[in-house]
Amino acid sequence: MRVLGVDPGLTRCGVGVIEGTPGRPPTLVAAGVIRTPSGDPLPERLVAIERGLIEWLGEYTPDVVAVERVFADQNVLSVIGTAQAAGIAMLVAARRGVPVHTHTPTEVKASISGSGRADKAQVGKMVARILALKEPPKPADAADAVALAICHLWRGGGAERIAAAVAKQAARQQPRRPA
Amino acid sequence: MRVLGVDPGLTRCGVGVIEGTPGRPPTLVAAGVIRTPSGDPLPERLVAIERGLIEWLGEYTPDVVAVERVFADQNVLSVIGTAQAAGIAMLVAARRGVPVHTHTPTEVKASISGSGRADKAQVGKMVARILALKEPPKPADAADAVALAICHLWRGGGAERIAAAVAKQAARQQPRRPA
Repeated sequence: MRVLGVDPGLTRCGVGVIEGTPGRPPTLVAAGVIRTPSGDPLPERLVAIERGLIEWLGEYTPDVVAVERVFADQNVLSVIGTAQAAGIAMLVAARRGVPVHTHTPTEVKASISGSGRADKAQVGKMVARILALKEPPKPADAADAVALAICHLWRGGGAERIAAAVAKQAARQQPRRPA
Repeated sequence: MRVLGVDPGLTRCGVGVIEGTPGRPPTLVAAGVIRTPSGDPLPERLVAIERGLIEWLGEYTPDVVAVERVFADQNVLSVIGTAQAAGIAMLVAARRGVPVHTHTPTEVKASISGSGRADKAQVGKMVARILALKEPPKPADAADAVALAICHLWRGGGAERIAAAVAKQAARQQPRRPA
């Protein structure tokens, strides 16, 4: 399964693609950032982010897109821009028919490092270790996007598969249950 | 000048088109709402809003799009969805090369009714009076979108023209200024 993680932002929108199958360590396909100048008018910045995301989706054809979930109580000053970049990521993926899932920063940190309170440096280190890289993808927004993709592979993808297996098992056992 | 006003929202995104020339009362071309079911997944709702806005832009070919400016301190619970709908409106317009301007709710109320604190009913009444309609466009989100378009025509468009006239006048007077 190929996952594109998006760490939404107007100035630096992190993007990271990983490839993985259950029970095997995932591998890094690509990571980077889509930048837009903070002095540009907002509508133009949104168009540039859309264009960048369309290029990443076209180039790496992910099976799923994982976007960081935006909260109103995160950083009030930047939440609107972050929400708009996240909205465009969801729009661009859904328009192509690519499934979109969201994960909170706490979920990402917890699934990567075992602690929901891990700082940026710890997340970067864990991303490098999981993907057997000499150092974390740079800048930090690219590493965060890769962390999101890993989180989805482990948490989302895994959970969906476990839920499906449990449902299958339950269906198989049903005829045998005592009256 | 033809203005498309957008009152952004996920459940009801108000849209209103007016036509106006300076010194004459504007006329209503069309008003309505783009609705998306609140139970649908967010990415699909964003795609539906984009599709609706593309249709309005294609059908009415406005010269300018006026979008309500979103603030982080507005309604914390709905600000993210509002910001995402506003982002898509700006994206869709900018992608077509249509200029986009934003106005705050206070600016809209003040330019329509003379008071920044006017309530929804007062704004609706003033919209109907300005456009010589028997009653305000319905629902309220459509009336709000029309109010935004009128605000832009009077405030934005007018201000731009006044600024241009002042600059022209100043340039004309410059050679005559005493040493």
